[in-house]
Amino acid sequence: MKTLIVYAHPEPTSLNSSLKDLAVTTLETAGHEVRVSDLYAMNWKAVVDAADYGLDTSRPLKVALDSGRAFDAGTLTPDVLAEQEKLRWADTIIFQFPLWWYTMPAILKGWVDRVFTFHFAYGVGEHSATRYGERFGEGTLAGRKALLSVTVGGPRSHYAARGINGPIDDLLFPIQHGILYYPGIEVLPPFVLYGTDQMTDEDYTHVARAWQQRLLAVESTEPIAFRRQNFGDYEIPSLHLKEGLEPTGRSGFRLHVRD
Amino acid sequence: MKTLIVYAHPEPTSLNSSLKDLAVTTLETAGHEVRVSDLYAMNWKAVVDAADYGLDTSRPLKVALDSGRAFDAGTLTPDVLAEQEKLRWADTIIFQFPLWWYTMPAILKGWVDRVFTFHFAYGVGEHSATRYGERFGEGTLAGRKALLSVTVGGPRSHYAARGINGPIDDLLFPIQHGILYYPGIEVLPPFVLYGTDQMTDEDYTHVARAWQQRLLAVESTEPIAFRRQNFGDYEIPSLHLKEGLEPTGRSGFRLHVRD
Repeated sequence: MKTLIVYAHPEPTSLNSSLKDLAVTTLETAGHEVRVSDLYAMNWKAVVDAADYGLDTSRPLKVALDSGRAFDAGTLTPDVLAEQEKLRWADTIIFQFPLWWYTMPAILKGWVDRVFTFHFAYGVGEHSATRYGERFGEGTLAGRKALLSVTVGGPRSHYAARGINGPIDDLLFPIQHGILYYPGIEVLPPFVLYGTDQMTDEDYTHVARAWQQRLLAVESTEPIAFRRQNFGDYEIPSLHLKEGLEPTGRSGFRLHVRD
Repeated sequence: MKTLIVYAHPEPTSLNSSLKDLAVTTLETAGHEVRVSDLYAMNWKAVVDAADYGLDTSRPLKVALDSGRAFDAGTLTPDVLAEQEKLRWADTIIFQFPLWWYTMPAILKGWVDRVFTFHFAYGVGEHSATRYGERFGEGTLAGRKALLSVTVGGPRSHYAARGINGPIDDLLFPIQHGILYYPGIEVLPPFVLYGTDQMTDEDYTHVARAWQQRLLAVESTEPIAFRRQNFGDYEIPSLHLKEGLEPTGRSGFRLHVRD
């Protein structure tokens, strides 16, 4: 495997850092290639602005169109070009981050906002009576797998089906489906650690073993069965799921996962 | 009303900027006080790091604990202190932003990550057999209302109940419930504009009128009926919604909204 780890935590001795380091050694020991984007260490620029598109910036700035023009011309900034190159190189992408306010830290969202440009991650493929571009199962990054490794301060029960925060699968849906599956990446079930505010050294021994097992099983793990956009499940162009495809009573984000 | 507008778009002539300006003039003309946090114009620092907590930073950095200690000591950075003061001043908070990758732009997430510190927005109140801190309906910002004003490039149908992106209410739930309702803010139904990539000047005339109507109706608009945490709907401390409170078949995020 060729694995890119995108890692977002400010503290080099944090649990997130330990999990990132363990992923590197576990995968390399097993003979895989690993590259790491340590966003804090890279001093990653988190904010999209006109400086991202240089001479391709229009006046007024149009984020989507300008990013697509700069992508086409090869004039995106070197930091963004490097990340796009890593994504093309990788067959597996691991995201290591703490859940802050129910989603990713701003620095990681800024990696998505700046790296997932028009014509690279969206605005790809033709529109017709049967296709609505290449996305949700097709796209630039098709053939790759992603795995979220997420630390959560609170207890597991708060993220259960009836938990007050909402189900973890629903909280991660905008990332797993909206960001990763959109440009074609298959998404493996996430590795989520709960109660990390209370974690002991003994807990970590068990956690480390579980994480190593997940890492070494990546190639044989079935991805989440998100529905593909252009293969008959959706009306074009409304992109409504066709009636009757889901089990009775299912609704919300779960409509978009096959049985 | 005392309204704080938190605005996140890099282009001063954008639709988002126009909606922000229209909110200022509409509310001021109606006799209300308005302050604006224009995150791009302020060059807002989007990334949480050790510099945020100065001498209160522990080695190793502990984001929650250090932010709480700096909050208690009054030693948070001036930019963060200013935003917390604006939030205490306001009775109404409007967030104006484009939906990028199904959530807020990184600069706005970084405003949340840095301003919503421990002991200010979370870690407030006592725990007991009947209370799990002050949150979800109680908290530092109780008594305030928030309103998301969101522009969306794609068409409305893609965000409908059966739309491929998932329902807009579910996409916004981690913001409306997880970020805003958590520290006690009541959340009004969002003002969402779809298809903004295709918007014409004539469309904007209608949009502007609708936005003014929503702004002038803020005081009489019913908030989303999120369930309060400590008032009998949830088991303590699992925070599972008690069985039988919801209509048959309801699941996911919608469990946490009363009928």
